[in-house]
Amino acid sequence: MLRAARYRAPPSHGRALAAPGHYAGLVRIGRMTAALTTDTVGTKVLLAEQLDRWEEVGEDLVAINVNDLAAVGARPAAIVDTILCGSAERSVFRRIGRGVHRGLVAARCSLVGGETALVGEIVRGIDLGATAFGFFPDGRRPILGDRIRAGDRVLGLPASGLHANGFTLVRHLLRGRSVPLGRPRPGGSVPLGEELLTPTRTYSGPVDAIADLPGVVGLAHLSGGGVRNLSRLTSSGRFVLDGWPEPPPLFAWLQGLGGLTAREMFQTFNMGVGFAVVVRPRSESLVRRRLARARAGEVLALGSVTRGTGVEVSAHGVRYEGYVDARPDPPRTRSPGP
Amino acid sequence: MLRAARYRAPPSHGRALAAPGHYAGLVRIGRMTAALTTDTVGTKVLLAEQLDRWEEVGEDLVAINVNDLAAVGARPAAIVDTILCGSAERSVFRRIGRGVHRGLVAARCSLVGGETALVGEIVRGIDLGATAFGFFPDGRRPILGDRIRAGDRVLGLPASGLHANGFTLVRHLLRGRSVPLGRPRPGGSVPLGEELLTPTRTYSGPVDAIADLPGVVGLAHLSGGGVRNLSRLTSSGRFVLDGWPEPPPLFAWLQGLGGLTAREMFQTFNMGVGFAVVVRPRSESLVRRRLARARAGEVLALGSVTRGTGVEVSAHGVRYEGYVDARPDPPRTRSPGP
Repeated sequence: MLRAARYRAPPSHGRALAAPGHYAGLVRIGRMTAALTTDTVGTKVLLAEQLDRWEEVGEDLVAINVNDLAAVGARPAAIVDTILCGSAERSVFRRIGRGVHRGLVAARCSLVGGETALVGEIVRGIDLGATAFGFFPDGRRPILGDRIRAGDRVLGLPASGLHANGFTLVRHLLRGRSVPLGRPRPGGSVPLGEELLTPTRTYSGPVDAIADLPGVVGLAHLSGGGVRNLSRLTSSGRFVLDGWPEPPPLFAWLQGLGGLTAREMFQTFNMGVGFAVVVRPRSESLVRRRLARARAGEVLALGSVTRGTGVEVSAHGVRYEGYVDARPDPPRTRSPGP
Repeated sequence: MLRAARYRAPPSHGRALAAPGHYAGLVRIGRMTAALTTDTVGTKVLLAEQLDRWEEVGEDLVAINVNDLAAVGARPAAIVDTILCGSAERSVFRRIGRGVHRGLVAARCSLVGGETALVGEIVRGIDLGATAFGFFPDGRRPILGDRIRAGDRVLGLPASGLHANGFTLVRHLLRGRSVPLGRPRPGGSVPLGEELLTPTRTYSGPVDAIADLPGVVGLAHLSGGGVRNLSRLTSSGRFVLDGWPEPPPLFAWLQGLGGLTAREMFQTFNMGVGFAVVVRPRSESLVRRRLARARAGEVLALGSVTRGTGVEVSAHGVRYEGYVDARPDPPRTRSPGP
């Protein structure tokens, strides 16, 4: 958004590297490359507030940021939080802190500072933001997607739930309907509020286990924008995802609630897959072995790359010809790196 | 605030270093130490909004963050911004971006990414936040204040105005009084609104010019908390500032408006000095020469360190026995590093 701020520092102050299509910014200092990502939990906090449950969004706060680091192959090292609020209730912060702690454990990174601003004139309720700092150990190079080519395979790592995207739409769908958050939705097993708040899965560990392999050529965190985030990686390949599994029932239920199209769903929610890994065919089995050793759990064969551009999720009749930043929901625009 | 989030990553993920009393967090990766600071412009944006002037707060956004990096002796390399708003007016972002650009030029650092979240349900107006990443070039060590001892001299670098602190109080003082922002205050030469919005001075350049000198033992950004920030540096020395100059007339005018005590003023505003440098007596002339070469402008002899704790600004009859985080204004609490 801040296109006017295009100044580039002299090399003695670090060299900004281009990372087109990525949320992480990269800067090279001597022989070390640092990656920075910043993101907020967004309107998911409004649900946390409504239910007075704070640990989940605390965990989200770490996960959403380190997952954007993972999308360039960086290892997370440190986080700083920025919390804006109108009042500082001790017990709320304690619970957010416990969730952040869990997120740190999952990502193996440290909280090294933060800012809590009591700005009741600016913020209603609370906003949870953070910045994550990561690096590329032992000569590892950033994985930016520029080497993706026809024939590559696309693997997927399942999501833990909605993660922290699409909540403006979710809250809109629930509004005015008598859907009690304290009880399971039809077919659900835990109270709906709890199901919706399930913390974002952290992909740092699995990604760290494969990011040194030259056969790993693309990584994508399927956050805001859903599967369309894949198409940001390259303009010289089309992602044909004919192996996308049936999304978990929560998504179908939400879709039915709002009478939404599959196209709307796939560009707003993760639809069951939170992270994608693009690999050379000859590396697939090694990548799978490494992921298994890192206890990544199920690894989905989503599809492959063909000539062209865009993304299609064949089984669900969804086709996107490219990445467009203007989305109906969530109304968040994020400026990728330089 | 997030005391529960005390997890420390294994060394392979970077080692968090303690920086007691500082807003910057430090993490060591191999032989490189990174510093991270995060801060928001706070309620100064409400004045910017009222006057529809955005470049100044854009410049502030960079300055307040890189100045916290300067307070540990780090050189700024990169910034990421986090802007929360209810609506994205193109012209507002363009002007913020121009201000950020100026801040980047002053700090010699690059904007490498950012997030603009349209979260009208959370934020009224706009919030401007950012995180800055800095490093310690060529074996430079962080300057944390732990070597400060009786006999050291305290130098000051003048502020450009109010910077970005105390605005909740300023707005409170102006409310209900017929003080037109479009005209100069009594004795002023520019319109009051413009005077209040004057961007924060960037201290990165001058500090970078002296941070390699072993005789520089303490650095303090006099932001929220004013001169009391000095006392956060050490508990084994008292800062006796008998050379503090008469604060610029704007401060006396604000003080009169609210019938405030000098004590309240000095712990809320910078009172004319935005940055302090603590040096060994034998290094003072070298530090002054380096500052002159870096075009730091006027360097004030604020006073010296004696045995004891706390801060006193003798000429103004102000004494603080230590740093207390609970301040009447601005109502912001910031969690220093681990």
